[in-house]
Amino acid sequence: MTRTAAVIVAAGSGARFGGAKQFAPLGGRPLVDWSCEAFQTHPRIDDIVLVLPETSAKPEYIRRFPKILDVVSGGARRQDSVWAGVKRLDAHQTGFVLIHDGARPLVPAEVIDRVLTAAKNYGGAVPVIFSEDTLKEIDADRIVRTLDRDGIGRVQTPQGFAHDLLRRALVEAFDAGFSGPDEASLVERLGETVAVVLGDPRNIKITTPLDLITAEAIRHENRPGI
Amino acid sequence: MTRTAAVIVAAGSGARFGGAKQFAPLGGRPLVDWSCEAFQTHPRIDDIVLVLPETSAKPEYIRRFPKILDVVSGGARRQDSVWAGVKRLDAHQTGFVLIHDGARPLVPAEVIDRVLTAAKNYGGAVPVIFSEDTLKEIDADRIVRTLDRDGIGRVQTPQGFAHDLLRRALVEAFDAGFSGPDEASLVERLGETVAVVLGDPRNIKITTPLDLITAEAIRHENRPGI
Repeated sequence: MTRTAAVIVAAGSGARFGGAKQFAPLGGRPLVDWSCEAFQTHPRIDDIVLVLPETSAKPEYIRRFPKILDVVSGGARRQDSVWAGVKRLDAHQTGFVLIHDGARPLVPAEVIDRVLTAAKNYGGAVPVIFSEDTLKEIDADRIVRTLDRDGIGRVQTPQGFAHDLLRRALVEAFDAGFSGPDEASLVERLGETVAVVLGDPRNIKITTPLDLITAEAIRHENRPGI
Repeated sequence: MTRTAAVIVAAGSGARFGGAKQFAPLGGRPLVDWSCEAFQTHPRIDDIVLVLPETSAKPEYIRRFPKILDVVSGGARRQDSVWAGVKRLDAHQTGFVLIHDGARPLVPAEVIDRVLTAAKNYGGAVPVIFSEDTLKEIDADRIVRTLDRDGIGRVQTPQGFAHDLLRRALVEAFDAGFSGPDEASLVERLGETVAVVLGDPRNIKITTPLDLITAEAIRHENRPGI
């Protein structure tokens, strides 16, 4: 239980992006390669499993990122893809797992650090940022009420968990037919603690072509203090 | 009651930005000028009041943007600044008012249109977008629960209201010592309807230098369909 793994999930069809966004170019490199690089170069990560729509690029990725144990095919839902990655990990050797969205190319090393430290202390941890916009509860076409934005976090990745806890959460979700928007929601339903740590505004998720333009701008200006 | 006015609020000190962000350069022009231009060129807007920290630039703004009725000094809180602008409007001539955050330089004309149309139908209206990130209710350092992100809107500006409704909401908030994060919250507390319309991801709020970089990127790629 001494190893720490990252599962990078990049198995989506990119329907809203209009194509396979995991391979869209950012700074001349496929989007998903940025996440591979972030975990490859992080000193606290031992192993990586990469989840893609299909695995023809496996030899290339294993060659370029030596921490990659395997490249596996994803499933229909996010949690199917996460499971495809997690089950590839050695159940006895792996103590903690970070699940990272391959559509978040610019994850800072400090965010990985904060999540991993809190996951070790609490069992589970996610990075959050807070909205700059006022948040409203909405019903159909009107406002119900203004929400306290300090009490609502926008969750980023990586989400980190004790390996056995995440496995149990995934298995119990499948058994119950439960589908959640993220891994933390599967752990929350078990009543287990998920801690929050500070995310980073640069750790954006690429959903539309506009986000890719934003990421390009962030990349050009990526320096401490922004 | 036939005129439609916009109040552009840009009176903040820019503490989090690290300086007077309303005059930070975007595409070589002061940030606030972009909002002035958006309302100056919009065919459904008759009058503009600009709220700045101080008014030495008043002659220049009135010359450059002919719809500007006046440039007035803001107050300590956002609603003080909004009131400083609204009270400058002709109470008899002005039917509807849009309050716009001067830190949202790239507001599309269609968003102004949607807000104004809904404000005329419902009395009040705000543009919202929905989070791409999973949202969690947080208590101190842990997750309480996963929220339904389709039921939570991130509110942008302009926020539009019948002029008499907004005046009443402001006066009653001041009388009650109530301070809200936006104008809609003052109208909500009266029990009046505030409709929601679709905002636009390009209509970002500039809060940090990173946001300005993002805005620069959006500006370069600003075209329909993104």
